[in-house]
Amino acid sequence: MKLATIDDGSRDGRLVVVSRDGARYFEPEPVATMQQALDAWDETSPALGNLAGEADEGAGASTANVRFLAPLPRAWQWLDGSAYDSHGALMQKAFGLDPIETDAPLMYQGMSHRFLAATDDVPFRDEADGIDFEGEFGVITDDVPMGVSAADALHHIKLVVQINDWSLRVIAPKEMKTGFGWIQAKPACSAAPFAVTPDELGDAWKNGRAHLDLTVRWNGNAFGHANGGAMSVGFHELVAHAAGTRSLCAGTIIGSGTVANRNYDEVGSSCIAEKRGIEIVEQGEPKSRFMRFGDRVFMEARTPDGGLLFGVIDQQVVQA
Amino acid sequence: MKLATIDDGSRDGRLVVVSRDGARYFEPEPVATMQQALDAWDETSPALGNLAGEADEGAGASTANVRFLAPLPRAWQWLDGSAYDSHGALMQKAFGLDPIETDAPLMYQGMSHRFLAATDDVPFRDEADGIDFEGEFGVITDDVPMGVSAADALHHIKLVVQINDWSLRVIAPKEMKTGFGWIQAKPACSAAPFAVTPDELGDAWKNGRAHLDLTVRWNGNAFGHANGGAMSVGFHELVAHAAGTRSLCAGTIIGSGTVANRNYDEVGSSCIAEKRGIEIVEQGEPKSRFMRFGDRVFMEARTPDGGLLFGVIDQQVVQA
Repeated sequence: MKLATIDDGSRDGRLVVVSRDGARYFEPEPVATMQQALDAWDETSPALGNLAGEADEGAGASTANVRFLAPLPRAWQWLDGSAYDSHGALMQKAFGLDPIETDAPLMYQGMSHRFLAATDDVPFRDEADGIDFEGEFGVITDDVPMGVSAADALHHIKLVVQINDWSLRVIAPKEMKTGFGWIQAKPACSAAPFAVTPDELGDAWKNGRAHLDLTVRWNGNAFGHANGGAMSVGFHELVAHAAGTRSLCAGTIIGSGTVANRNYDEVGSSCIAEKRGIEIVEQGEPKSRFMRFGDRVFMEARTPDGGLLFGVIDQQVVQA
Repeated sequence: MKLATIDDGSRDGRLVVVSRDGARYFEPEPVATMQQALDAWDETSPALGNLAGEADEGAGASTANVRFLAPLPRAWQWLDGSAYDSHGALMQKAFGLDPIETDAPLMYQGMSHRFLAATDDVPFRDEADGIDFEGEFGVITDDVPMGVSAADALHHIKLVVQINDWSLRVIAPKEMKTGFGWIQAKPACSAAPFAVTPDELGDAWKNGRAHLDLTVRWNGNAFGHANGGAMSVGFHELVAHAAGTRSLCAGTIIGSGTVANRNYDEVGSSCIAEKRGIEIVEQGEPKSRFMRFGDRVFMEARTPDGGLLFGVIDQQVVQA
């Protein structure tokens, strides 16, 4: 099942059920928003699934003239992991950092009150802040009890999403040094329009991971196509970590961190910071610049049969 | 004006306007939740103010049998500062830490999807995690544009609140070392029942600070009565810092950090960690334990005329 939120002028938008090909949609009744669907998922999801079936058979309205928002235009909680070890190891090597001392998954609490639509212009105050994209996969949970096991957490993953976690690389290390995590370095993320149930991924959903190539283009040029399956811990383990001392609310979004593979010389990267890290290691200094106003970034993930799972992120960076 | 949220069985509760003495209330129409009031504050607040006046004159229903929730039982954003320099300096001295290198206010993004009611039992998984309270003041904003000045930010502060920022002290330093900030060390906060407009503080609201003593008792014993006015940066400056690279949504809660004064030998502390720090500095080792299951903490702040501004926090720690 594929769900989305369309722009109806309200802060939370209007929930729609979308056909697998993204061409047709229904506005379900009485469930009006994505959050309402997630708040009572066991009750709401069967009817939504029925509508999805009808849309797949050609019923419903055309999506040609609707404007999609992020699946959750505002969310109660956004917790972003850093689950690709090869990314962390590369960053530490490139920048001569000490290894991060922890035996727990890395995770930060991010800004969740706004997720930008996949085609919205993205406003930043200054190019000198080091504007960077981060291509990620994410999951959305229902209500998760404190202390959930990783095995049980898997069943609380209701939707899979694709995210661009915008980052300001000049600010990030300064905030990181305080130990308090990031505020100014992590403005609003963007999200691809469609949130899909894990079964839509078919065999690509296994071990709590999205085994999909994330295609990234910067100003139309190929930048990366790393595979999401390389997470050192799965989403279910990230959910369990997040719920170690708190219950999670329905609509919690958990991110993978920037998708990265060990064979980056073959598959490229999902953020500029990593590419610069590779350049430092291989060429002694960073060659790539960060983004400038007017630059565009494009991200998509397709199933093995070519299906466009989450829709596309295709955005321009602009001055605020 | 004094606002609160009462338990009606829903996740967001029912907004009520409360008399200054906390004895009587109205359910305003058509504004049903605190978030709705904040989403359109300029339109909603005049009518709410009128109802407050009527409640002060003895109209409305009795609050005797209602159960108050936190003013925002779930919030889109919670950003907690650490604005009392004397606390940071003491912690660094006690634990032999390097000073935090930053010229910006300290702030972390905290869990916002649940704020516990002032009298709810507070569940924790393990006493060994180092259960601690942190008495704080906080403010709630309307929509704040990215890049707002501190002077303009002052006008976006619509409500003042009193918060207990629960902290797990054994986990906190481990998470801090990662640079990613806190997840497991910072479960849900609690909040006193009443959110008040800044004018309710009278002369105690100046320079973007709540110049009020925060009375804290642990198991009935006096623990501290530090004054909130000692913030090294005011709430308006915290709001401006938070909005440096992002817009803030209506309903953003910004915390002061644990209230602390330089003359802690006279006024005590607002969290156990600080008391232990003082013991380390003065006696060579910490003498106080953290909280145990069954322990209670009490917090209140009164105006100079004795008025109980935010109501009281009075909670028991229990095993999850």
